[in-house]
Amino acid sequence: MRGLLAAGRILGRSVGRLRRLSPGQTLRRPLTTCDLPPRTPPTIARRAGAAGFGDDEADHQYALTWHGAGPRAVLIVKKPDDAQADAALGAIATWLRGAYPQISVVLEPAVHGQFRAALPFARTVAPGAERDEYSRVVDFVVTLGGDGTFLHVSSLFRAHVPPIIPFSMGTLGFLLPFDVADFQPQLRRVIEGAATLLPRMRLLYAKRRADGSLDDASRLDVTNEACIHRGTYPHLTTVSCFLNDHLLTTSVGDGIIVATPTGSTAYSLSAGGPIVHPLVSSMVVAPVCPRSLSFRPLMLPSSATVRLQVHPESRGRAAAYVDGRECGELRQGECIEISRSPHPLMCVNRDDLAAGWALDINSLLQFNRSFSYPHVSPFVDRVPQK
Amino acid sequence: MRGLLAAGRILGRSVGRLRRLSPGQTLRRPLTTCDLPPRTPPTIARRAGAAGFGDDEADHQYALTWHGAGPRAVLIVKKPDDAQADAALGAIATWLRGAYPQISVVLEPAVHGQFRAALPFARTVAPGAERDEYSRVVDFVVTLGGDGTFLHVSSLFRAHVPPIIPFSMGTLGFLLPFDVADFQPQLRRVIEGAATLLPRMRLLYAKRRADGSLDDASRLDVTNEACIHRGTYPHLTTVSCFLNDHLLTTSVGDGIIVATPTGSTAYSLSAGGPIVHPLVSSMVVAPVCPRSLSFRPLMLPSSATVRLQVHPESRGRAAAYVDGRECGELRQGECIEISRSPHPLMCVNRDDLAAGWALDINSLLQFNRSFSYPHVSPFVDRVPQK
Amino acid sequence: MRGLLAAGRILGRSVGRLRRLSPGQTLRRPLTTCDLPPRTPPTIARRAGAAGFGDDEADHQYALTWHGAGPRAVLIVKKPDDAQADAALGAIATWLRGAYPQISVVLEPAVHGQFRAALPFARTVAPGAERDEYSRVVDFVVTLGGDGTFLHVSSLFRAHVPPIIPFSMGTLGFLLPFDVADFQPQLRRVIEGAATLLPRMRLLYAKRRADGSLDDASRLDVTNEACIHRGTYPHLTTVSCFLNDHLLTTSVGDGIIVATPTGSTAYSLSAGGPIVHPLVSSMVVAPVCPRSLSFRPLMLPSSATVRLQVHPESRGRAAAYVDGRECGELRQGECIEISRSPHPLMCVNRDDLAAGWALDINSLLQFNRSFSYPHVSPFVDRVPQK
Amino acid sequence: MRGLLAAGRILGRSVGRLRRLSPGQTLRRPLTTCDLPPRTPPTIARRAGAAGFGDDEADHQYALTWHGAGPRAVLIVKKPDDAQADAALGAIATWLRGAYPQISVVLEPAVHGQFRAALPFARTVAPGAERDEYSRVVDFVVTLGGDGTFLHVSSLFRAHVPPIIPFSMGTLGFLLPFDVADFQPQLRRVIEGAATLLPRMRLLYAKRRADGSLDDASRLDVTNEACIHRGTYPHLTTVSCFLNDHLLTTSVGDGIIVATPTGSTAYSLSAGGPIVHPLVSSMVVAPVCPRSLSFRPLMLPSSATVRLQVHPESRGRAAAYVDGRECGELRQGECIEISRSPHPLMCVNRDDLAAGWALDINSLLQFNRSFSYPHVSPFVDRVPQK
Repeated sequence: MRGLLAAGRILGRSVGRLRRLSPGQTLRRPLTTCDLPPRTPPTIARRAGAAGFGDDEADHQYALTWHGAGPRAVLIVKKPDDAQADAALGAIATWLRGAYPQISVVLEPAVHGQFRAALPFARTVAPGAERDEYSRVVDFVVTLGGDGTFLHVSSLFRAHVPPIIPFSMGTLGFLLPFDVADFQPQLRRVIEGAATLLPRMRLLYAKRRADGSLDDASRLDVTNEACIHRGTYPHLTTVSCFLNDHLLTTSVGDGIIVATPTGSTAYSLSAGGPIVHPLVSSMVVAPVCPRSLSFRPLMLPSSATVRLQVHPESRGRAAAYVDGRECGELRQGECIEISRSPHPLMCVNRDDLAAGWALDINSLLQFNRSFSYPHVSPFVDRVPQK
Repeated sequence: MRGLLAAGRILGRSVGRLRRLSPGQTLRRPLTTCDLPPRTPPTIARRAGAAGFGDDEADHQYALTWHGAGPRAVLIVKKPDDAQADAALGAIATWLRGAYPQISVVLEPAVHGQFRAALPFARTVAPGAERDEYSRVVDFVVTLGGDGTFLHVSSLFRAHVPPIIPFSMGTLGFLLPFDVADFQPQLRRVIEGAATLLPRMRLLYAKRRADGSLDDASRLDVTNEACIHRGTYPHLTTVSCFLNDHLLTTSVGDGIIVATPTGSTAYSLSAGGPIVHPLVSSMVVAPVCPRSLSFRPLMLPSSATVRLQVHPESRGRAAAYVDGRECGELRQGECIEISRSPHPLMCVNRDDLAAGWALDINSLLQFNRSFSYPHVSPFVDRVPQK
Repeated sequence: MRGLLAAGRILGRSVGRLRRLSPGQTLRRPLTTCDLPPRTPPTIARRAGAAGFGDDEADHQYALTWHGAGPRAVLIVKKPDDAQADAALGAIATWLRGAYPQISVVLEPAVHGQFRAALPFARTVAPGAERDEYSRVVDFVVTLGGDGTFLHVSSLFRAHVPPIIPFSMGTLGFLLPFDVADFQPQLRRVIEGAATLLPRMRLLYAKRRADGSLDDASRLDVTNEACIHRGTYPHLTTVSCFLNDHLLTTSVGDGIIVATPTGSTAYSLSAGGPIVHPLVSSMVVAPVCPRSLSFRPLMLPSSATVRLQVHPESRGRAAAYVDGRECGELRQGECIEISRSPHPLMCVNRDDLAAGWALDINSLLQFNRSFSYPHVSPFVDRVPQK
Repeated sequence: MRGLLAAGRILGRSVGRLRRLSPGQTLRRPLTTCDLPPRTPPTIARRAGAAGFGDDEADHQYALTWHGAGPRAVLIVKKPDDAQADAALGAIATWLRGAYPQISVVLEPAVHGQFRAALPFARTVAPGAERDEYSRVVDFVVTLGGDGTFLHVSSLFRAHVPPIIPFSMGTLGFLLPFDVADFQPQLRRVIEGAATLLPRMRLLYAKRRADGSLDDASRLDVTNEACIHRGTYPHLTTVSCFLNDHLLTTSVGDGIIVATPTGSTAYSLSAGGPIVHPLVSSMVVAPVCPRSLSFRPLMLPSSATVRLQVHPESRGRAAAYVDGRECGELRQGECIEISRSPHPLMCVNRDDLAAGWALDINSLLQFNRSFSYPHVSPFVDRVPQK
């Protein structure tokens, strides 16, 4: 709250100054990223000491090292129709322009249009192959908004996504470790290569037709979960779940979810799944309202391939959903295939992941609230005071 | 069943022949392992193709390669007071003696005493440092019995345990992929280096005193789960759970379990935990009858260190349990500490792990039995027929 | 199976005989119930001894006593497009015509059209006020089909429903205690007043507009469950649940179910609700995928009034469903109101309810299947053999 | 808190005055209830309008009507070793003595000894048949303490228990609707017949020997739950559960609980059972850590008889527990039998049960805490302010 007001004040000043400096700018053609050089990928290496999770091969946090002169283009993505996010975007872009003039600020086309007067130095991508162009030039991404804004970033890039630093507009979250009020020190850490990255595993979603062929156009990276659900169809759907081509189970019910550790605290949790630490390399399979007493959630190795098929004789149809969005209807015999994406999201994170995660599950999920004595919650005295 | 009868018949013949060959043998001193050379550790390397679980660093099955002349000593461990296990032990030892005379058969002292007449060639360890001696000479271990016999093996060695091939006496299980009736081809595969190994992660258990110091003598390797439970104490116990020194939660209830993936289908499952594939590198934290509506099971990275402390002001005491056995009382302020053991159990396993695991959770756990139509279980036609 | 074949053979003979007796009948106008006298309601009184559930006021089975000459009209309702149900209907109608000629057989209009040639003595209701006419003349109802057919009966009557005797076409169920192969002795018991009735509580559903007024046209009797669910709407719905005008909780999630004991083994069970014996006078409130770790199912007294309101500020809309059918969209501020219906369904049942229910939850729900040893299920030897 | 301080101040004044009035009193023999007349049982009739739960036969609150001159003896039971309860007892007894001199204050012997000097008018029961004497004279009971004190009352009477008014020492609870700070108006309401009673169903517990005979001496009334649990025994116990002599299920695990609606928020809730409103006439059967994925909690009619038998071939023994206290070991073949007690506890309660219960499950159980936004709990503004 305090942070947002501060951001607002900064923006107020910035916008005022910018307006005086840039008369007539709206007549010019939009400034694009065409003339920016391709990005130089940073080195991302395990931070052995910092993670606090020992010496394991699989489950580490990472350090970010830029090459050459450091990052040269930042994409700022914001929640639409949100005054606080607007204010924060203006404040951050203006501050970056002053503190790091060598870094170009890139905005999505609609956002660029909105801020063209206020932020005349901002660039956008030329219409056409936006995803390719973002992938070509963006060194890191700032998100301003909630989980939805964070999830949206995934769709802007082809496969690989540059490091993301997500800012909340007031309510911290699993995906939102930083308050926008702290943007200056946090961005400095990223730009100067002092940030810690948490790799968030993604899944790769694709649809297979009833004849078994893959629908290449259907491929999507999954941040939270892929799911098959009867949605609007009144009849229960019969879904067969295969693990590496072996039939695991056939379920009649509302649906089946396959979630990442990141997604374990989203829809999968509502469906009864466990809370999975983001450093566990695994996927959760959880049923939605199964007609069974004994469909307990499963934890599969992240190297598994899971297929969910609408049973050829299912009475009901179903639809596929990725991160909460419908991807199309599935008819009898069609299936979705889920495996680990080779492109995790590298997220700037708090340095002490264990402490942060403990705080999150307690404060965000209301984890293990004891009966009768809410005032003895061990976390009452531990929530950091701003 | 068929297997056991077959084993019985083989034993009957063997014992008859052995008796004629070895009159007066009971007068001799027991044959020990003293004169055996130290074992040559085999090479255990990832079987990239076979596991069916892709190209991941963490979650693989392994191939076993012996060096020199191959294994020279096998420890056979059997369920006590079980006629079927007795019969199987006799049959296996006799067959090994004939087929692989270069391999010494080693038995635990009590078992050796029982079979001294029937298996005069069998060796045992001299009294004293049994664990050191087993570790020095045993190349691989055969177990004959149920899960309890398998768990017992862990206690016979110091830290590192040689590869284990577990045989069931009729009922297959997660830990018991092979029926003893098939012992000949399965043992041939092990001895000739054609077997597939599944690494089963273990945990390391230790007790910390109320002053924070570690009780070195308390260290144990954990195959299924370590747990803190009020046991006989009438009052609910208050237990604080720490993740890498950060307080995660404080729970009032019957207890808390920390389980391996192997243990996820044992007590943790009864307490509501998920079913975890053995290749997931993780530990489950599950509460036992918590006084809370919101203590959902947690999946932590295997590199985490978990401490469970009887709260200094807990009204109730508690006891610690490892793999179902009590390890002693815990008073207020005392705690148990759990981290990953560097010494997984390397278990000979079916080659196709995914298929075997799918079969196990369906046939052993009665996973996802659908309502109303038990006859449409997809597994009815898929259970392999012997 | 045997029963259905038997029924088929009976029908074959019957239809043959009927065809010879009734040439030209299809030219006549349909025979209706207009000239039937109004039904004389039977006495339905507690069977103190038989129920096996002691001397309680609330939870009893009931005996049926006809007055005067006994029942005079039976409505037979069948599953559409099902050859087995067609065969059974013919067999039952024909047998009734011979054994109890004083009882008129009544069919729904479409069914009557289908069987007009084969069953010329069958009656139907004149178009117009079908529900009033069924309520006026029908003494008892026979259903032939699955649970859906049973649920359909509820919609054919105004409020009060005459006693129902449900026959399964092969698979017994909670709602289907009798196999159609046994129709003769079971129907004799009903007609001769020797049957035991189980009262199945229903709920009364109505919609309230956002201004608080009741939508009278929306009233429905509920056999299984009423529910509010986001259905096709992508955003999570915020629903407030009121108990007798007191706010009980506000839930964000997929939906909330209010179920009868009969419905406790339907959708409510899939959502995590308990299994409720039909003699418990209660309603279950169970959430569907709530965004909460601590929404445990609630058991409320059957005399409670529950209101589920789409929160005035809910981001998502929702729809109402009764017994699996959509009843219309609910906008922000609208709500559904659920209370006990004064008109339970009186269902002919097995005399020993406790034994039958125990059998049902074991055989139909696969209740409490133990791990590892499916062969020791205590019910293997107890399932009645036909 | 405020209440307790107030009670302390009242006691301070009272004790001072009493001390001056009664020198030398400790030399006299204890004042007993011998000369009190037998109690005249009050009329307890349904309060049709007040309960807010309609017109149902089974689920009502009740009004209390005294006969003749009203109540003449109150038993005050307090938590041991608790300064606040001591202060409250003194305050209440002294106030009653002044306001209602016709009512004798009765204390348990040990408490009477403690307060003999301060409360010289208090009576106790003569050693010998305490339970008979309490049952003979006590018109109503005041409890001062927590749930444990409330549960203790049950053990002081033979079968029938007079109306109870339970006061909390600061933390309200399901069983503790009144704060002791409000004792004056609440006691006035009871004594003047204006109180509302909530009947809390109890269960009747008895042990059956392996030969099937009933152990009469084992009979106990159960307020929360009866349970069979392996307790100290290391092996899992196999327990068969019978419903009215019909085998319902056989469970391997830690134990099985049979709970009242009152007990549904105690141990049964920790074991996964539903939250049952106290006006639902039912018992919960919930497993403790069963070796099964499919043992869902059951709701049985209150008129059922449930037997839990340690299976004759169980590997493990077990113990029986009633309301958290061990009642003795159970060997193979022995069982416990549970049915509804004819003697519910009649508890003075808030007049608006629905509102109170809604408040309790939210504030005491932390029911349905939504994710992420603890500040939007609908109950924040509704908790009554004192």
